[in-house]
Formats: sequence, C-alpha cells, structure tokens
Amino acid sequence: MKVELSFSSAQFDELQLREKNIIVIDVLRASTTIAVALKNGAREIIPVASVESAVKISGSLFGEVTLRGGERNGKIIEGFNLGNSPLEYSETAVKGKSIIYCTTNGSVAMAKSRYARTLAIGSFVNLSTVTSFMQEENKDFNLICAGRINSIGNFSLEDAVCAGMIIQNLLKNESLSVELSDSAKAAHAISKTFGRSILKMLKTSEHGKYLIELGFADDLKICAQLDSVPVLPVLAGTVIKLK
Amino acid sequence: MKVELSFSSAQFDELQLREKNIIVIDVLRASTTIAVALKNGAREIIPVASVESAVKISGSLFGEVTLRGGERNGKIIEGFNLGNSPLEYSETAVKGKSIIYCTTNGSVAMAKSRYARTLAIGSFVNLSTVTSFMQEENKDFNLICAGRINSIGNFSLEDAVCAGMIIQNLLKNESLSVELSDSAKAAHAISKTFGRSILKMLKTSEHGKYLIELGFADDLKICAQLDSVPVLPVLAGTVIKLK
Repeated sequence: MKVELSFSSAQFDELQLREKNIIVIDVLRASTTIAVALKNGAREIIPVASVESAVKISGSLFGEVTLRGGERNGKIIEGFNLGNSPLEYSETAVKGKSIIYCTTNGSVAMAKSRYARTLAIGSFVNLSTVTSFMQEENKDFNLICAGRINSIGNFSLEDAVCAGMIIQNLLKNESLSVELSDSAKAAHAISKTFGRSILKMLKTSEHGKYLIELGFADDLKICAQLDSVPVLPVLAGTVIKLK
Repeated sequence: MKVELSFSSAQFDELQLREKNIIVIDVLRASTTIAVALKNGAREIIPVASVESAVKISGSLFGEVTLRGGERNGKIIEGFNLGNSPLEYSETAVKGKSIIYCTTNGSVAMAKSRYARTLAIGSFVNLSTVTSFMQEENKDFNLICAGRINSIGNFSLEDAVCAGMIIQNLLKNESLSVELSDSAKAAHAISKTFGRSILKMLKTSEHGKYLIELGFADDLKICAQLDSVPVLPVLAGTVIKLK
C-alpha cells in the first residue's frame, strides 16, 4: 500500500483525484461534524464548494427534509439552518435529514473528490475506524488534508497531525506493507512532535485559537476525542453516507 | 519577527506575495544552482515561469552575453545552453553572463515572487547566510518551499528540512523574538527528524532518487554541503543578483 499525502487541498483540480482512494481530513471542523451528524441519524451530507452551489441545489429540494449547514469565517451562513459546530448536529436537529453542506476548506476538498474511486472522511473522532478501512481495502491511498485556505501556507497543523497518526496506526500493523511518500513521512514526523496531547495541540493551533475566540472552545473538546464517534462517512454517488 | 511558511508554491497567485519578504527554497536544484552560478561570476539570473517565456525574452537579448539554463523533468531543455546541474555553472561557463532560467518548480516560485518587497534564494549551501540576512532585516518573513508540482502533495522533503533548519537557526538567537506559524512549527519538527544527515536525506528523498536515476548523484553531494556557497542571491528589479 502506497500512502501519498497533501497538506492542502487548495491546489487540486478535481480531475487529479479521479479514480484515487482518498481520505479527506478536516479536523476543525468539517470531518468531525460530518461524523457526528451521520452518527446522529442524518440521512446524507451533500458537500458543495460554494454558498452559491448550496443555494442552487437546495432550491430544487423539498424544505422539510433538507437543511443547509456550514460556515464562512467559522460562523453560520446567512439563511442556513446550521453552522459548523458538531454540537449543533444533534439527533433532534438532523435525524432523517439531507444536509447540504458548505465550508471554507473541508466541503471544498470533498466536492473536489467527487470523481474519486473511494472517499472516506477522517478525523480524530473516527481515526481507528478510518485506519481499519484502509487496512481492509489494502490499496493505495491519498490522505488529503483540507488545510486552511485563508493562510499563506494553506496548512492546518491539526489535519497534518491527524494524518500522521493514521499513518502511525498503519505502520503498527506488521502484516501490512506500507510505502510512504515524502509528504506522508513528514506528516508522521509532525504527529510524533505534536500528537501527544490532541486537545492541547488543537488549543494552540491557529485555527483552534480562532475558534476559541469565536466562542467554540467546546467544539475543540469534541474534535479532540479520539475514536469517540467510530463511524465511517464515505462518498456514495454524490452524497456522503455511513458505510 | 513572524515566520510563515508554505510547503508548496503551486497554489499561489503572484499578488498574494506582493510586498512580502520571501525566501524561496528549492534545494534540488534551482536555489543551489543559482547560488553557485552567481558565486562563479554570472552577472544575473532572470527567472521565468515557462519555456515559452524563456524563448521570448532571450529572443530580444544579444546571444553572446545571454545564456538559457534550466530543466524539464530534470533534463536540459532543447535549444538551451545549460541544464540545471550546479556543476554546469562553472566560472568558465557563466562569468559575466546573464542567464535566463527556467525550471519546473524553483524558477516558477521565483517568478511568482516578483512583486515581493524582498526576495532571497535559500538552500543548504547558503543556509547561514540566509539566516543572517533574516536576522539583520528582523521583519516578518515567508519561507516558500518550491515543492514538487509533479507529485500530488506538491511537497519536497528537502525543501521542508532546509526551511526547518533556517527556523532552527533563528530560534537559537535569543535576542530575536520569533513567532512561528503552524506550518513553520511543522517544518521545524520535520527538520529535527530528517535533518541529521543532509546527504542521506537527499539520497532517500523522492526527487533525490529521481536525480540519481538520471545520473546526477554528484549534484546531491553539492546540494548537501552546508554553507559551502555563502552568498545571498536576491531579487533586484526583475533579476536575481548577489546582494
């Protein structure tokens, strides 16, 4: 199994990801929120790349069973039903609903991955589930960190650490032959330095600090809980569902 | 001093780099080759983003004092005078010459940085010189790793390690107040894992292995020699010269 990794999804064209096996990682908060929403009974998540797409698509769907969720600059989008906090995606709020989902980085990376052979959504809350899936598939994989389009580096420390910990889990399995790209080796090194305390790392990360400023400190606690939401969100057609 | 870092230059628009202080790092081989060429008396390096630009620009210059240098897939470009091996840029070959320079990643990153406030070229061969320059300037800097456009991660381990070692040098200076972005912290962690033997790291890196296959193993030895070419190539107008 070859593991390739990208620290950012900003530079991709969607055709580059065609026919590849992809894990999209956006720890704060898209990947975590999607896992929580689906665990809480949401019917499906429809990731879109822009607010305009979200509005266009939801216009043709029936209001009662369809919600719009997501963020711009971390905050709920005007006219949307839900923001991007996993705490909003309770069973009461989302059970049986289709959620058209638009975020700055995560949903863009997912929308770009629509021609992938397989796409699963990874975060700390389902880290072992994602690793098990990769081990069972035993194919080449691309770990795509959503990154942070608002920074010049397009880099998210938390996504890199999460990817590095997935790699660490794969390497532990001695029956698996794992070949790492340079970027995958680098993420592994990053996770060894910053992965000891996930919550502390999130709190000191650029995006984590921004979310705390916005009043979302509790979200960081949810996002840091390793294997607390052991589900596997995967792309099925154009929507994300539980495998 | 705030230090921000990008592991790739693929996603930039040139206007994003406007008025910033930039170090472009392309260890294998553009940054190293430029340092060697200027040390050996080249008058100036004119970085361009495409072979078409190189041909267009050189058409209007006089042949005797102007050379074309660079690579595609590591090899010399048809009709060019020089490839991209630092060994080709000897005093005999380059003294007094203007060199129109076109490579896959490095010269593109440099051409994109043309609206920067300051742009210097960094590599292992001039690492301490670059660090001293940053310390003297004592302004915010962006370390731009050229990366590798041919890989899905757009990542070069050797550029990340070099950037991380520059950061390590800055942190050693206790009189300097250095604030690192998440990506800069990550590069620092990567350099601690992979920076112990530069030559070994280059030999096992994706791009290093490719260059060895092409017959450029000796280039890696040149590129690995820390502080062996203590010069500072900087952008002056639209050309790169020694400071």
